[in-house]
Amino acid sequence: MSDTPSNKRTELAQLGEFGLIDHLTSDIKPMNSTTLKGVGDDAAVIDQGDYVTLVSKDLLAEGVHFDLSYTPLKHLGYKAAVVNISDICAMNGKTEQLLVGISVSNRFSVEALDELYAGIKLACEKYKVDLVGGDTTSSASGLFISVTVIGRAKKDEVVYRNTARENDLICVSGDLGAAYMGLLLLEREKQVFKANPGMQPDLDGYDYVLERQLKPEARVDILEKLKEAGIKPTAMIDISDGLASEVLHLAKDSGLGCRIFENKLPIDVVTGDVAAEFRIDPTTAAMNGGEDYELLFTVNINDFDKVKEMPGIHVIGHMLEKAEGEYLISNGGSLYPIEAQGFNHMRED
Amino acid sequence: MSDTPSNKRTELAQLGEFGLIDHLTSDIKPMNSTTLKGVGDDAAVIDQGDYVTLVSKDLLAEGVHFDLSYTPLKHLGYKAAVVNISDICAMNGKTEQLLVGISVSNRFSVEALDELYAGIKLACEKYKVDLVGGDTTSSASGLFISVTVIGRAKKDEVVYRNTARENDLICVSGDLGAAYMGLLLLEREKQVFKANPGMQPDLDGYDYVLERQLKPEARVDILEKLKEAGIKPTAMIDISDGLASEVLHLAKDSGLGCRIFENKLPIDVVTGDVAAEFRIDPTTAAMNGGEDYELLFTVNINDFDKVKEMPGIHVIGHMLEKAEGEYLISNGGSLYPIEAQGFNHMRED
Repeated sequence: MSDTPSNKRTELAQLGEFGLIDHLTSDIKPMNSTTLKGVGDDAAVIDQGDYVTLVSKDLLAEGVHFDLSYTPLKHLGYKAAVVNISDICAMNGKTEQLLVGISVSNRFSVEALDELYAGIKLACEKYKVDLVGGDTTSSASGLFISVTVIGRAKKDEVVYRNTARENDLICVSGDLGAAYMGLLLLEREKQVFKANPGMQPDLDGYDYVLERQLKPEARVDILEKLKEAGIKPTAMIDISDGLASEVLHLAKDSGLGCRIFENKLPIDVVTGDVAAEFRIDPTTAAMNGGEDYELLFTVNINDFDKVKEMPGIHVIGHMLEKAEGEYLISNGGSLYPIEAQGFNHMRED
Repeated sequence: MSDTPSNKRTELAQLGEFGLIDHLTSDIKPMNSTTLKGVGDDAAVIDQGDYVTLVSKDLLAEGVHFDLSYTPLKHLGYKAAVVNISDICAMNGKTEQLLVGISVSNRFSVEALDELYAGIKLACEKYKVDLVGGDTTSSASGLFISVTVIGRAKKDEVVYRNTARENDLICVSGDLGAAYMGLLLLEREKQVFKANPGMQPDLDGYDYVLERQLKPEARVDILEKLKEAGIKPTAMIDISDGLASEVLHLAKDSGLGCRIFENKLPIDVVTGDVAAEFRIDPTTAAMNGGEDYELLFTVNINDFDKVKEMPGIHVIGHMLEKAEGEYLISNGGSLYPIEAQGFNHMRED
């Protein structure tokens, strides 16, 4: 272990989050026959015979992924669990176990950790997940939460990102852009409070977008509906970084192009109102907002009659051959290239 | 989620690391039939039919678990992987997959992360483990490393902590206390360097204890030897917090007492020399030093003839009924109660 590191210095921001993951993991080749899928999907897939084990993990850092000045610890714990459970959903699996590691400075009390754990346990109860590992140690400063989830699926039921086919329909669950509007509201109130600590936050009527930001849910209900209807998605991903970023993953990993129709994007009325208040195009919020934790998936075109009737599922576009590229078709009929502008926690801002 | 937290404030240090984990997890009851073992062993155990999946995770914080002023990043990556692989060993399982999450401030460059990953990859190669998840995000300050390992074992081969029986022999692999002596040396050189930045560190002749601190190994070789000899340990744990702390886990979780013989403790000559230099009793280093990552296990007394001949395995004591308590029998024949004084990352120092 005596290799001398080169003296070159490349800033993390130069590569960005996805570029960095590619850079660090592109040379990895699996050695164990049980490794069916490594880096590059919502979860790793491990062979168990008729079943597979799905594993996903996330590390959340205070000041980067969450702001404790407007995030109650119980909500934070709930969300930390849910966003990981959502990753297992995106593989069409059921989360059964969860492990949590917390690194915390002595600025926090036992009661604060109780709140955080109360949120994690509430999510575990709701989604019938067992908390099987809990480790808490100090940090020099700040709060770090690491969650690992273990899921289970029949081997032939797993849905990957890279298996969409030409002409497949692109579907999304729920509605988009609300969590981002909730974040903007909370950030605004924080600034108001900083300027005038006596001011009470005025968040009446904004409940929906605030809840979408502070208490997202994993769409296990959508998986159940699809199963009941006899539909197996051809590819699937969950929307954590914004629709644009995720649909590009589906298209590029599947070697395809895509079209998304602006007039098909599901956007809640409150999301539209808040977007107007902030002078943001609601389409931008839906495409690039992030943290929706809805499911984005493709289905065979023959399933159109089934999915179009399903409440909570919206057909928003379709896949086509790679040479056609990836475009949003605006309400006016123009084509705009889809670009990932999702959350980039590596950027310097 | 509107419960109001109480205004009581209990400091984390009041409960300590183990007390805190107990406090946060004691009310958890498994809901899924696949959950064979949750919190409370080296790894969680998940049912897969004839096999089980073993899952363990660790979160390491800069300034608490490692000091970058004397820990090369490549060694840090190697160690972060190995200490988790060691947890799977302690369940008598084979690690097959590893996921890593890194949270890092922009004080670090891409090249620094390359070094860290080089160490992780080296460990993966050595132990034939597939890196199946890699996530890197920013932190406001400092470096945090979260590692999750996935292991595999035949269901009837898993060895737990709480299954030792009366009269079982207590065995340990390798030797003890060296990693702690390595840590003291590195800390001393750091202080010398701070006082006189021109001084070169004088670490000649200390290679063994430094390597034990900076580049520990997981004892997969010991598991193989035991298997070849037809011995299945009755209980097992790995030594991360010092022999005293770990043997208490084995005894208490199994509802037994124990005796450890001071004159049977395996201590390397260099460890003894460094201990003398620091005026530390080598027995204290072996009992409470920590970070040895050796295996501590119990075997049936009928296996005595087999284990006593096995190189690298030392019989250091035996289990007895709970009422007998847990004692170290000194070279002079006196009984000293065994007390856990292992690393407590919650203490305020």
